[in-house]
Amino acid sequence: MSISRQRANQHLSRLLESHSLQELASRLAPRSDTPAISIPKHHHTLTSGEIAKRWHALGVSAEIQAQLLDPQTEQQYRSYQHNIENFIGTVKVPVGLVGPLRVNGLFAQGDFVLPLATTEAALVASYSRGAQLITEAGGCTAMLLSEGVSRAPGFAFENLRDAGLFVAWAVTQEEQFRLAAERTTRHGKLADLEFTVEGNHVYLRFQFLTGDAAGQNMVTIATQAICDYIIATSPLKPKYYFLEANFSGDKKASLQSFLAVRGKKVTAEVLIPGPMIKTHLHTSAAAMVDHWRMAAIGGVLSGTIGVQGHYANGLAALYLACGQDVACVAESAVGVTRFEQTENHDLYAAVTLPNLIVGSVGGGTGLPSQHACLEIAGFAGADKAQAFAETCAALCLAGELSIVGALCAGDFARAHQKLARG
Amino acid sequence: MSISRQRANQHLSRLLESHSLQELASRLAPRSDTPAISIPKHHHTLTSGEIAKRWHALGVSAEIQAQLLDPQTEQQYRSYQHNIENFIGTVKVPVGLVGPLRVNGLFAQGDFVLPLATTEAALVASYSRGAQLITEAGGCTAMLLSEGVSRAPGFAFENLRDAGLFVAWAVTQEEQFRLAAERTTRHGKLADLEFTVEGNHVYLRFQFLTGDAAGQNMVTIATQAICDYIIATSPLKPKYYFLEANFSGDKKASLQSFLAVRGKKVTAEVLIPGPMIKTHLHTSAAAMVDHWRMAAIGGVLSGTIGVQGHYANGLAALYLACGQDVACVAESAVGVTRFEQTENHDLYAAVTLPNLIVGSVGGGTGLPSQHACLEIAGFAGADKAQAFAETCAALCLAGELSIVGALCAGDFARAHQKLARG
Amino acid sequence: MSISRQRANQHLSRLLESHSLQELASRLAPRSDTPAISIPKHHHTLTSGEIAKRWHALGVSAEIQAQLLDPQTEQQYRSYQHNIENFIGTVKVPVGLVGPLRVNGLFAQGDFVLPLATTEAALVASYSRGAQLITEAGGCTAMLLSEGVSRAPGFAFENLRDAGLFVAWAVTQEEQFRLAAERTTRHGKLADLEFTVEGNHVYLRFQFLTGDAAGQNMVTIATQAICDYIIATSPLKPKYYFLEANFSGDKKASLQSFLAVRGKKVTAEVLIPGPMIKTHLHTSAAAMVDHWRMAAIGGVLSGTIGVQGHYANGLAALYLACGQDVACVAESAVGVTRFEQTENHDLYAAVTLPNLIVGSVGGGTGLPSQHACLEIAGFAGADKAQAFAETCAALCLAGELSIVGALCAGDFARAHQKLARG
Amino acid sequence: MSISRQRANQHLSRLLESHSLQELASRLAPRSDTPAISIPKHHHTLTSGEIAKRWHALGVSAEIQAQLLDPQTEQQYRSYQHNIENFIGTVKVPVGLVGPLRVNGLFAQGDFVLPLATTEAALVASYSRGAQLITEAGGCTAMLLSEGVSRAPGFAFENLRDAGLFVAWAVTQEEQFRLAAERTTRHGKLADLEFTVEGNHVYLRFQFLTGDAAGQNMVTIATQAICDYIIATSPLKPKYYFLEANFSGDKKASLQSFLAVRGKKVTAEVLIPGPMIKTHLHTSAAAMVDHWRMAAIGGVLSGTIGVQGHYANGLAALYLACGQDVACVAESAVGVTRFEQTENHDLYAAVTLPNLIVGSVGGGTGLPSQHACLEIAGFAGADKAQAFAETCAALCLAGELSIVGALCAGDFARAHQKLARG
Repeated sequence: MSISRQRANQHLSRLLESHSLQELASRLAPRSDTPAISIPKHHHTLTSGEIAKRWHALGVSAEIQAQLLDPQTEQQYRSYQHNIENFIGTVKVPVGLVGPLRVNGLFAQGDFVLPLATTEAALVASYSRGAQLITEAGGCTAMLLSEGVSRAPGFAFENLRDAGLFVAWAVTQEEQFRLAAERTTRHGKLADLEFTVEGNHVYLRFQFLTGDAAGQNMVTIATQAICDYIIATSPLKPKYYFLEANFSGDKKASLQSFLAVRGKKVTAEVLIPGPMIKTHLHTSAAAMVDHWRMAAIGGVLSGTIGVQGHYANGLAALYLACGQDVACVAESAVGVTRFEQTENHDLYAAVTLPNLIVGSVGGGTGLPSQHACLEIAGFAGADKAQAFAETCAALCLAGELSIVGALCAGDFARAHQKLARG
Repeated sequence: MSISRQRANQHLSRLLESHSLQELASRLAPRSDTPAISIPKHHHTLTSGEIAKRWHALGVSAEIQAQLLDPQTEQQYRSYQHNIENFIGTVKVPVGLVGPLRVNGLFAQGDFVLPLATTEAALVASYSRGAQLITEAGGCTAMLLSEGVSRAPGFAFENLRDAGLFVAWAVTQEEQFRLAAERTTRHGKLADLEFTVEGNHVYLRFQFLTGDAAGQNMVTIATQAICDYIIATSPLKPKYYFLEANFSGDKKASLQSFLAVRGKKVTAEVLIPGPMIKTHLHTSAAAMVDHWRMAAIGGVLSGTIGVQGHYANGLAALYLACGQDVACVAESAVGVTRFEQTENHDLYAAVTLPNLIVGSVGGGTGLPSQHACLEIAGFAGADKAQAFAETCAALCLAGELSIVGALCAGDFARAHQKLARG
Repeated sequence: MSISRQRANQHLSRLLESHSLQELASRLAPRSDTPAISIPKHHHTLTSGEIAKRWHALGVSAEIQAQLLDPQTEQQYRSYQHNIENFIGTVKVPVGLVGPLRVNGLFAQGDFVLPLATTEAALVASYSRGAQLITEAGGCTAMLLSEGVSRAPGFAFENLRDAGLFVAWAVTQEEQFRLAAERTTRHGKLADLEFTVEGNHVYLRFQFLTGDAAGQNMVTIATQAICDYIIATSPLKPKYYFLEANFSGDKKASLQSFLAVRGKKVTAEVLIPGPMIKTHLHTSAAAMVDHWRMAAIGGVLSGTIGVQGHYANGLAALYLACGQDVACVAESAVGVTRFEQTENHDLYAAVTLPNLIVGSVGGGTGLPSQHACLEIAGFAGADKAQAFAETCAALCLAGELSIVGALCAGDFARAHQKLARG
Repeated sequence: MSISRQRANQHLSRLLESHSLQELASRLAPRSDTPAISIPKHHHTLTSGEIAKRWHALGVSAEIQAQLLDPQTEQQYRSYQHNIENFIGTVKVPVGLVGPLRVNGLFAQGDFVLPLATTEAALVASYSRGAQLITEAGGCTAMLLSEGVSRAPGFAFENLRDAGLFVAWAVTQEEQFRLAAERTTRHGKLADLEFTVEGNHVYLRFQFLTGDAAGQNMVTIATQAICDYIIATSPLKPKYYFLEANFSGDKKASLQSFLAVRGKKVTAEVLIPGPMIKTHLHTSAAAMVDHWRMAAIGGVLSGTIGVQGHYANGLAALYLACGQDVACVAESAVGVTRFEQTENHDLYAAVTLPNLIVGSVGGGTGLPSQHACLEIAGFAGADKAQAFAETCAALCLAGELSIVGALCAGDFARAHQKLARG
């Protein structure tokens, strides 16, 4: 997080343009006066009165209120009561269609039209171009490779000896852990357990199959049940423990999740004939591989987790439209893109994403407009989560092809300029 | 991305429950039939007819359509035409209020009430609890430390000698690069330039001050102008070059951005008196520091970039409400959280986020409901981006305090269960 | 690998002090003249005549030769013939003693005196100080947590479908893989197998228990046998494969090895009474924990793998003295150091090293002076590798205590100055 | 550092083969008896009597002593007194010749014969093959790109405001810092200064040009002088500070050093004609590029810093022979290898190493046999450090070509088996 002396100097000069150093310093002191505003409290059952009180407290114009608390939102406000607290309305994010995107997956089969929600011009156009190219090439192959959502409590002992004895006990308890966990959930299954000893600290990492749900809450509750069992029965009591010791990879990019799996791990590939690259992307397989090589090394040289172009764009837009937890983009948007030129000057392209956190039920999937998007995509309801994950990878593959095509053809800046600036 | 033999075996067994290996293999083959569906093309000026055609092509029920194309959206559809393509409607994300959050920043001054958009239960409640705690403690100090958005073209030369000669030329051209860049933008300023030579490849990394805008498009267009200048005037022509060589850190967590800055770098701190921790969080500074220590090592042991708890949650929700590019959460949600216990058993807590990509103008900030949220937060319009960034850090600090408090008090699973399951 | 414009400019200016740009450029061109020197070829059986020919070819002074080909080396040259090619003599690295170091390990039991080979002043003095402190505190506890040396071939297939079918076959072949591998070695055992699919590429990662040997050659030969078996019998032939696809972590720091194990994983801890810290290190537990906190965050802020001080110093010196592969320091010198203050103001300190590559037989352990060092340390011969690994961790713990003590007491620069400059 | 339940179980079973859990636990307890051995103390002036006392204390056989304290070592023991403490003799590491290696560098010009010290069979043979191939192809181009050795003190303040004010002062003090630093050294120059603020902590990172020395001690002493100046004159006193806050990258692989420079940054390239690949390596450019691609992704998939094959092997062997600090291999052995096939089926190969820590004076360079090796290599004395660094990169390039050649030709396991097992 370093700043060079030169940059620090520039920054300081700009700060001192409007205030003295003393004035700046005085801005930073704590203040003990009572806040002028307070937010009316959240109650278990959301009422329109409560919403009105919040708007009253905010004291903003009616126009502002109308944009968040439009008639449809006002009518459907009860839909949101188990998905948010201190509710005041909804923010509207525009949705555009991408597709058709042909996926030949273990689970996803067919031509998908995907609703993407974003406010970034050119995103939908670019992904859609990639999707149509894949489809014209016969579709992409996609394969769910592994599954599992982790939760990782940490236990502190007096010393290493006790930590070791705890592990020696815990390795014998997998069946009991499973029973404790699965008593809390109909759909979750304990799939794996890993041990990490660091001095007198022990981290347990549980991995669960979560059925059709993304499952973050499910694994929290199930792991709490295991911890309760441990505290009740372990011959060695920890000095203290935490249900999550920042070791599960939840809501963050981590090498651990990247190297294994968190959520769903999917790989997808497509073979694009050379002439099709020319027609659709106005470039060649050779140029795209030149970009890939420089971009792969560019990723390495900038210290990314994996090497890829812009998975985050497609994933954030699809997660958002379909009621997924968009904060999980922080962990999902990692992986590996690989391009190769074949002997026939065709392009082989593959993406691999090990940390897709998606579900077809639970979370925001039941909200009105989100559910509508899931219906359009074809992933609403039971037995759809795996196909959904494979399609996420296919979408990312489309995005990688399109952006690299634009960079090779020299279209990248122009397209953004044109679509964003109108 | 490894899978253990045992996990691979389990996965394979589950796959073979419903299909033979041959059936599975046949699902993966490309298909050449024409897609049954096509999406009516995007035009420069969005019309209601075009929207209707897309809905017709989708062939879904009127109820589904009504959730995305509600009356207000139908009426305001033109607002969205430079922010999305293939538009069909809007997805509605519930918004809840957090605050008041007192920030004593170089730029942000006062008690902020922040609209967060999320579908994840407990998120708003948890951040709001943290915000109120900070406010009661006199507010948090926040400091914008550095700014700059990067774009990084890559140039390939015949050999290292030519690459070296190119660099020897380019170091003399900063003023020309600045002129070329600043001709494309009123607000952007070229702030820095870095050189990376890897064999016969040269990456240039330009950093721009982007005024009140997040600035991703601005820096793309400005860098294109610099590249045009280079191609026109460099004594050594590259064999090929790309406007972006995956070296800028755009839309991804990278050590390079984390170690320096991308967007805005902010640090924030607060001192919470011990008794207030007891009252608000039902735990102690000592316990929270025990968690911090185990969590910091947990982050290190899982290979994260920086060490922090769940910045992604607060950032995604605030970005989304306020019309920021939510895909940037992939790069923004990194940083460092530090807790210490003082001699008086108070808690010192600090967060540092070097990659905040926020703007008060441009992108999605002008859309109706997003603009309303910016107005509520107090960050609409000119000269607000720096204060916005400082408040992002303050929000993350609130989130870290609240989640660690819950984990220490044993409330974490229960709170999620109660709020999410109703 | 960026260089700022300012630094690039400085560098260029210094280059141009002595040569013009053109002269510099001309230095970089390939040259086709025949080299003036050639090195007499290595033969399977080393002879003194061959050594003499090499010295003759070098054409250096007798004094230079005498320093490498001293009488003892001349007499023992045959000892080296299976450890090096193109032999000309030996380099002499001074050895100093560290200890006694008390280790209370699962395997290592007792007070060890360790020979360290280094040319860096202060290193032995510092580690010895730490060792004596540990011993006076009753010794450190050490625990071997896991073992396994990996080798990772990569296989390329026509497409993802074939890659998937290959994996589906390979998961059924573990027993055959084991048989093929164990036919090549008396001591090696196949312990684990992991699968990584990335598009049409499959990486297999084999892990072996290697008995008393470090085992790098053993696992190479065993994995070649598995690959031969695969090529002979797999129903799906790869387009090509490589015995090692840079995925095993061999000779490099990697998150994958750090997150799991490569070689031997050991953790060690000690509790140092406050008064002893005062007497030996002239500081306090509180100050050392202040350093630890800042240093742990310093490691995070600089993007290291794990967080630790200077494991490389102790490991390189011990590896070198004891005939270990000192290039493996690149992978071994990672891990986690943790310091905590207890309620009694004592210091709890722990280190964890997951990638120790050590053996008590094989490699350089049989060479005359290296074997002598192993005898002094007590790790020569069978059934010693585990104790050796535990002692490596104990040595690193000693080094961490001593360096942090010096930094806290303000002795660090002075000690180096005094010992190195005489 | 996780262990799967299965591996944990296996490990526990093996432990319990020979001891009960209780016995194992009791081995781990601290022991308070007095050690049976103590090492005679190190004195400032090394004497033969002191050495004799240490051997007496060790109580090992005369044969063991003779291997470390051979006649030449006994005669030259005074040479070592400022490079080690508690001296007892020398360990002898066999040295083999590699070359000629033609380097066409900014600094290194000519055909080098390099002495490598290692105990690993096949290493010298493999690097020598690569060197000869490079030489036959006209030599490799090498370019020193940047220089600088860092030292990074950390300062803790009461709060962020004070930290900010400290930085605002420190940015004005560069000239004073330079004067303070350069008073301690004739050769060191302060080249750069970077600021990192994390809450109330400030890390300063100083970078020095260190002339012909590797310079680790030089920068320590110079930075101590700067810190003394800061403590004496800063208007804001830190609560505490440390001369090194684990932020300089000293003795460890770090992204920060990799992304910028620590020591010397060099890139080297060569173009190998297709027929020469066939003759020397028995493979083709196409196959080598196939390996490179899979290996580059293999590096990414295993989470390495940079992507390369085995720089550590060549660097450790050359550092060791030439009196460099071999512990620095931990930081030096990172970088990027890139292979490309040209249109003529030739192979373009490049390596880039940003963290070479080498010197031609100081450290171990003056010891008898180390100095002899430096003389052979041609890097003894003044004005040689830059050429030395360029040759390190050239050597690594040779090693990469040779190992990949062996992996492509299927020779890798066989060569190791033949050379190591005799």
